[in-house]
Amino acid sequence: MKDDRIREECGVFGLFSNSEKSVSEDIYYGLIALQHRGQESAGISVTDREGNMGNSITHKGMGLVSEVFDAELLGRLKGNIGLGHVRYSTTGESVISNAQPIAMNYIKGSLALAHNGNIINAAELKKAQMLRGLAHFGTTDSEVIAYEIIFDRVNTGSIEEAVKKTAGKIRGGYALLVMSPRKLVAIRDPLGIKPLVLGKRGDDFILASESAAITSIGGKLIRDVRPGEIICISSDGIKSDLSLCGENHAHCIFEYIYFARCDSVMDGVEVHEARVRAGRALARSAPVDADLVAGVPDSGIAAAEGYSMESGIRFGHIFHKNSYIGRSFIKPTDRERKIAVHMKLNVLRDAVNNKRIVLIDDSIVRGNTMRQIIEALKNAGAREVHVRISSPPFLHPCFYGTDVPGSGELIASDHSGKEVCEAIGADSLCHLHLEDFKTVVPGHRFCCACFDGNYPVK
Amino acid sequence: MKDDRIREECGVFGLFSNSEKSVSEDIYYGLIALQHRGQESAGISVTDREGNMGNSITHKGMGLVSEVFDAELLGRLKGNIGLGHVRYSTTGESVISNAQPIAMNYIKGSLALAHNGNIINAAELKKAQMLRGLAHFGTTDSEVIAYEIIFDRVNTGSIEEAVKKTAGKIRGGYALLVMSPRKLVAIRDPLGIKPLVLGKRGDDFILASESAAITSIGGKLIRDVRPGEIICISSDGIKSDLSLCGENHAHCIFEYIYFARCDSVMDGVEVHEARVRAGRALARSAPVDADLVAGVPDSGIAAAEGYSMESGIRFGHIFHKNSYIGRSFIKPTDRERKIAVHMKLNVLRDAVNNKRIVLIDDSIVRGNTMRQIIEALKNAGAREVHVRISSPPFLHPCFYGTDVPGSGELIASDHSGKEVCEAIGADSLCHLHLEDFKTVVPGHRFCCACFDGNYPVK
Amino acid sequence: MKDDRIREECGVFGLFSNSEKSVSEDIYYGLIALQHRGQESAGISVTDREGNMGNSITHKGMGLVSEVFDAELLGRLKGNIGLGHVRYSTTGESVISNAQPIAMNYIKGSLALAHNGNIINAAELKKAQMLRGLAHFGTTDSEVIAYEIIFDRVNTGSIEEAVKKTAGKIRGGYALLVMSPRKLVAIRDPLGIKPLVLGKRGDDFILASESAAITSIGGKLIRDVRPGEIICISSDGIKSDLSLCGENHAHCIFEYIYFARCDSVMDGVEVHEARVRAGRALARSAPVDADLVAGVPDSGIAAAEGYSMESGIRFGHIFHKNSYIGRSFIKPTDRERKIAVHMKLNVLRDAVNNKRIVLIDDSIVRGNTMRQIIEALKNAGAREVHVRISSPPFLHPCFYGTDVPGSGELIASDHSGKEVCEAIGADSLCHLHLEDFKTVVPGHRFCCACFDGNYPVK
Amino acid sequence: MKDDRIREECGVFGLFSNSEKSVSEDIYYGLIALQHRGQESAGISVTDREGNMGNSITHKGMGLVSEVFDAELLGRLKGNIGLGHVRYSTTGESVISNAQPIAMNYIKGSLALAHNGNIINAAELKKAQMLRGLAHFGTTDSEVIAYEIIFDRVNTGSIEEAVKKTAGKIRGGYALLVMSPRKLVAIRDPLGIKPLVLGKRGDDFILASESAAITSIGGKLIRDVRPGEIICISSDGIKSDLSLCGENHAHCIFEYIYFARCDSVMDGVEVHEARVRAGRALARSAPVDADLVAGVPDSGIAAAEGYSMESGIRFGHIFHKNSYIGRSFIKPTDRERKIAVHMKLNVLRDAVNNKRIVLIDDSIVRGNTMRQIIEALKNAGAREVHVRISSPPFLHPCFYGTDVPGSGELIASDHSGKEVCEAIGADSLCHLHLEDFKTVVPGHRFCCACFDGNYPVK
Repeated sequence: MKDDRIREECGVFGLFSNSEKSVSEDIYYGLIALQHRGQESAGISVTDREGNMGNSITHKGMGLVSEVFDAELLGRLKGNIGLGHVRYSTTGESVISNAQPIAMNYIKGSLALAHNGNIINAAELKKAQMLRGLAHFGTTDSEVIAYEIIFDRVNTGSIEEAVKKTAGKIRGGYALLVMSPRKLVAIRDPLGIKPLVLGKRGDDFILASESAAITSIGGKLIRDVRPGEIICISSDGIKSDLSLCGENHAHCIFEYIYFARCDSVMDGVEVHEARVRAGRALARSAPVDADLVAGVPDSGIAAAEGYSMESGIRFGHIFHKNSYIGRSFIKPTDRERKIAVHMKLNVLRDAVNNKRIVLIDDSIVRGNTMRQIIEALKNAGAREVHVRISSPPFLHPCFYGTDVPGSGELIASDHSGKEVCEAIGADSLCHLHLEDFKTVVPGHRFCCACFDGNYPVK
Repeated sequence: MKDDRIREECGVFGLFSNSEKSVSEDIYYGLIALQHRGQESAGISVTDREGNMGNSITHKGMGLVSEVFDAELLGRLKGNIGLGHVRYSTTGESVISNAQPIAMNYIKGSLALAHNGNIINAAELKKAQMLRGLAHFGTTDSEVIAYEIIFDRVNTGSIEEAVKKTAGKIRGGYALLVMSPRKLVAIRDPLGIKPLVLGKRGDDFILASESAAITSIGGKLIRDVRPGEIICISSDGIKSDLSLCGENHAHCIFEYIYFARCDSVMDGVEVHEARVRAGRALARSAPVDADLVAGVPDSGIAAAEGYSMESGIRFGHIFHKNSYIGRSFIKPTDRERKIAVHMKLNVLRDAVNNKRIVLIDDSIVRGNTMRQIIEALKNAGAREVHVRISSPPFLHPCFYGTDVPGSGELIASDHSGKEVCEAIGADSLCHLHLEDFKTVVPGHRFCCACFDGNYPVK
Repeated sequence: MKDDRIREECGVFGLFSNSEKSVSEDIYYGLIALQHRGQESAGISVTDREGNMGNSITHKGMGLVSEVFDAELLGRLKGNIGLGHVRYSTTGESVISNAQPIAMNYIKGSLALAHNGNIINAAELKKAQMLRGLAHFGTTDSEVIAYEIIFDRVNTGSIEEAVKKTAGKIRGGYALLVMSPRKLVAIRDPLGIKPLVLGKRGDDFILASESAAITSIGGKLIRDVRPGEIICISSDGIKSDLSLCGENHAHCIFEYIYFARCDSVMDGVEVHEARVRAGRALARSAPVDADLVAGVPDSGIAAAEGYSMESGIRFGHIFHKNSYIGRSFIKPTDRERKIAVHMKLNVLRDAVNNKRIVLIDDSIVRGNTMRQIIEALKNAGAREVHVRISSPPFLHPCFYGTDVPGSGELIASDHSGKEVCEAIGADSLCHLHLEDFKTVVPGHRFCCACFDGNYPVK
Repeated sequence: MKDDRIREECGVFGLFSNSEKSVSEDIYYGLIALQHRGQESAGISVTDREGNMGNSITHKGMGLVSEVFDAELLGRLKGNIGLGHVRYSTTGESVISNAQPIAMNYIKGSLALAHNGNIINAAELKKAQMLRGLAHFGTTDSEVIAYEIIFDRVNTGSIEEAVKKTAGKIRGGYALLVMSPRKLVAIRDPLGIKPLVLGKRGDDFILASESAAITSIGGKLIRDVRPGEIICISSDGIKSDLSLCGENHAHCIFEYIYFARCDSVMDGVEVHEARVRAGRALARSAPVDADLVAGVPDSGIAAAEGYSMESGIRFGHIFHKNSYIGRSFIKPTDRERKIAVHMKLNVLRDAVNNKRIVLIDDSIVRGNTMRQIIEALKNAGAREVHVRISSPPFLHPCFYGTDVPGSGELIASDHSGKEVCEAIGADSLCHLHLEDFKTVVPGHRFCCACFDGNYPVK
């Protein structure tokens, strides 16, 4: 199943506390709230507000947040500034030397960095760094950024100035948290491709990839970090530098369609609501006569709700999803491959028997899973299965940090809609039109390169 | 959250294969499909159909099925008869010596046993065993049954006869799988308190606590094992002994309300459908004017769907449930207790703001969680929250293997409905009437002792 | 190397404290002092003197004592009576279900048992037990003894009476510790094949396989437990029952030659001294003209010292032994087999170059290692290597718990001394005569069955 | 016990193979042979001779070599050039980020470095590096060297030229192995403070801290790497650059006294033989009338042998050393501190009773252990204990990588010999004179700064 999903690469979470309490426990909870954005590695770095610690303390490991950290480890990560990271690798291998935060000591003390996104000119920056005699321990572009900031810091008066200088050199989509001995600095790429939000809990400031991580720990969302904005938090309070901000925005549309948690608010819109609206738009553009609207768990549920509201067709559940199929689950052997879909999603027979069903999902990548699901529904007695996808067909790769497979693997790239419909065994298949999608969050400019090939950064 | 749930104690899964393929991988998948019935320990025993192995091979450990087993271990468990077990302890401590299957060597070779249920006369049987010079390694009543069967086997011609003799002595609710060197034997208690079903896949026979475990591995449900029926599977085929079956049945009602997976079929009714019907009945008996019907994930969702169908009020989702909060999750400290509910269930603000909500759950045990959920909904702007519970109030403990807390902890046992409603901060609170519940699966007789105090076995 | 050694099977250690201090830490140290007797599994059981605990607490696992236990585990094993066990399997497989102590609950409460030795009539006792309806979890004869004691306890007034009754039925060599809810009972087999000693530290009583375990934890050896003696320690003090003691003794000679630690005192003689005397006797019976006497580490060192004293030839070290080659060491592949001996024992070239060497070892089993050692010495410049073995040639298997290989693998069983000498590449080879060995511990009667085939128990 | 020993910091081992066989297994064995030089962390890096791998592969971890590596890991480390490292930290903390080999990617591909020693001007070099914009992941001077080499490589034609350039800048004692994509380069500091030897096995070249690691894997020692020599091994063969070699040598005297394995050959002398000679010299300068000469295991044994040869007093063993007291051993609590010495070294009572003993050890640091040993000997009946130390008293700290405690902890630094003798309870105490020691390896110039305060590098 998982193999047929687009994967996000990372989540970042930072906390600057003005109390005496250690921040590591809250960062742990914040990362668990962002776990959907990356399950390969997790890490936390902390330091103390007064710069007394000399070095920051970092722990990171491969696996889920709850596997990497235990109570004893969190207890040792004492500090009142901190940042954390969850990772799914898109560039670089899946090894511990690529896990984040990247933590180093440089001329001004310790530096820790957590990064979500991709830098498209990383290779040339890395070459220039190496010609100066630098070496890399891992293979990520995040390490490139870290060295760039350190280099700029040598000739600059402050960490926030160094971050700004570096921002002038890197191109791509990024949400970046940087911790110096006394400050927590954040920057979002000037197009706003990657999400980053600012929150507060009491006197503490929070920076996170998604607002759900802020509200999960009892904080309040203040606002989205502006595209190109640099925020610097220290004992002197919070400062915002808007000088790199521009007019041209390109928010990743896939955050709304699939990546983000449905309870996150992005640019003022709750993601669940955006998906409901996408389902409504789909019902208008691709209506069908049916008895029941259902979503493929979990990502198709919200759009199914919207399709139901608009069409008046009843919304219901038709699958049991087994929540015990985790990372360590032993995948069925080839011979038993077909049971994999039953293990994860088992059909509720009474709910589908003799029904005409509208089945909503957020996207189709390779089509394998959808084919198996439809087969299972038909075996359980479904009379018709009309597939409605709440996004346009995938046609192009992503260069900004999202793991869209090469077009050779995208079923839509070399098959007509009719061919795909036949391949998956559906009675009909429709996608949401890109223009309709854009109405979902009105007034926003998106990066839709995976659908239309218009890349906002060259 | 979890602390406010009633817990089931066990799931059993057995497979008799007539092919040469080892059964351990399928038992692994079957147990993962039953993981909701017990998360404390897991185990598998296998032997070979021809009795060539001498001893059976067993592996068991503390934790989830996917934590206890890996591919190498499964590879070593070679055999074409096998059984497995997942456990949540209700009697006996949570230690490895109580994990199942219980595997021993006795006069006829190896014996492995997997048991779901409670034997109420275990203490007196155990004492009699000990007076004969027996000793126990653990503290479970399952070990009592195992020794009883072994004792009876010494003086009986077959394992199925020994099981029958033992069944005449034990009282309580049980679903029992017993593996001898060449046979797989199953028995369900004469009242049918505990569930047990028979399935088939090709030439292989399957016995499981729930049908979902059969269909998950690609098999077909044949039928429920009859209350009191003994099934014996060997190379000679399948034999059924109905001589202990009676007319008096008492299926555990809580299997329908909460324990069983919604895709399991029990006594001909899919559990999801039973819960939808319970929601419908609740809508009839406890109607309310509202904008939205929602369920507490996951157990309240199906009844919410039914309430919506009957009332015509729209059904929708109002929570994001974080699926990464597992066994190793570090619970928030007392000081941060209130964030626990946000971590697990975060409210979709746009979905609830300014709405009058009917909130459905399957039961209220202590009431803490419901109070926190309602508070979160109100904070998110919900105008009214009307709680509807798809079962009657808990008033009595269970003696047959279900972990209902003592009545001192049951909020309904010493508070009126009105008091509970105030305590949880709801605008109204209604429970499904017991009589209405019984219509949900017509023609069935239930054990409803936890609601009405009528215990079917003394 | 290891493969060419005879292996002991077990060590036992018990402690009855009259203070309030928990005994588990001292048992841990006692077991580490006995680790040479068994490295496959280790375990500790404790209970409290007043019988308040109900059950005893047991922890056991595969591996070395220091791998099985950590400080946290020891902290949880609170009690003032306890016993422990280290095991190398001679009968039964090497699996956790065979690890000791065996801990069970029976009619009188908990029983824990630790056993060193072999019971030769175990199979018939086990069959009789099973005909009474008993079952075994493991495959050891220790479990047979445990059930026998429990059976006898049902019809007897005390645990020590039950142990005595059982002793009347079992035949073989054994040192046995049994812990009941309030007592610690010990028995040694009537021939004294297996060693067992009694010690004291302050008001605490200690029972152990070897005195070195007593002195290692700061205690004092009182005396050897007499062959056939039953010792019972309780809050009322220590009682000795000599009624099973006889005149016929047969101490395992291999304890003196190889098994026991050289600092242990057995029957009044320090083992090191016994080995020195064996070396002296060997010098008298098999003199040779040479420049240097050396021992194969560690077991040949003491006899080499004795050979030197008697012969006047200088005693010196000629090997470096690498102490970091432990259980988890990856053995060289076949291709590199020859480096194994260099890894473990590397020759001191300057010490052997141009020397005529008397090389002492305690025994030759298969001869492989000795051949490689001699080759290495010759490569390093040794002019002559005269091998002297401080025991007679192995000709017969052991039935009392020592892992002497079948005679098919014993090089001496089908080769003359001259042939063996040639096979190992020595310039001469002599064994100590059995009659000479007996003078080593004067006045003692030994079991020498592995040398002379005279088995004291049929 | 351990706390009263001087600890070495590191061992290095490199292998350049001209066959197709992977070198990782042999490096593993080489490191196990060097395990006595460092037990905190271990690591191996490999690459392939043709430079096809792009990056080298590295695995390192905390703990013993046999704990860090298993067969599967070694199997994944495929390559025909490789180097390994064992570490005991003297500078830098004991954390994984300080484990070696240090492996990085730089402008010319991968670089791996293994280093034994201390660079006394590391801090100033590090500052200069950081002012160029560099950052450090760990806190070791080895990382300083690695960056210096990388920096020099940018502006130099070959890795061996870069190593030479760096050697011109670093001051201290070091044995350094550097692996580039196609070459293995070694350098020893110009004074020869740290040991490094060259060996061969078939067509393969070996570089190691000690010759014992070469012979352990079946290779032959060729010669010591000359102080200041740079050796470069590639597919073109071996090249030696002697241009940094000088006349002034200062071999660490403590390698002969304690660090090195007794079967290692340094500067043509087997270490065991050097220690025997030290014992002989001690017998001449500090004779005493006694019955027995014994050594404190293991480091005092060889000198005891020499003392015996020279004095004619019999040499024998008087302790049993428990070899199962490893890293994971739980240290006795304060209350039981006194049993620690018994656990590790138990006295052979028969061997010492009524004897006048000369007890030889290599050094006295704090004196605690010696005091406990003498007390144990006296308790066992020793009439007199005359302590002879085969090195001069420690008076000064070491700045070149040896963990001699600060002079505040050195018992000899503020007590006269007579006071120390009384403090440890000996009947007499003598040290070897520094002048006498120098005769042990004639013609050699040593660094004896810890004894005489003459530091060869400022």
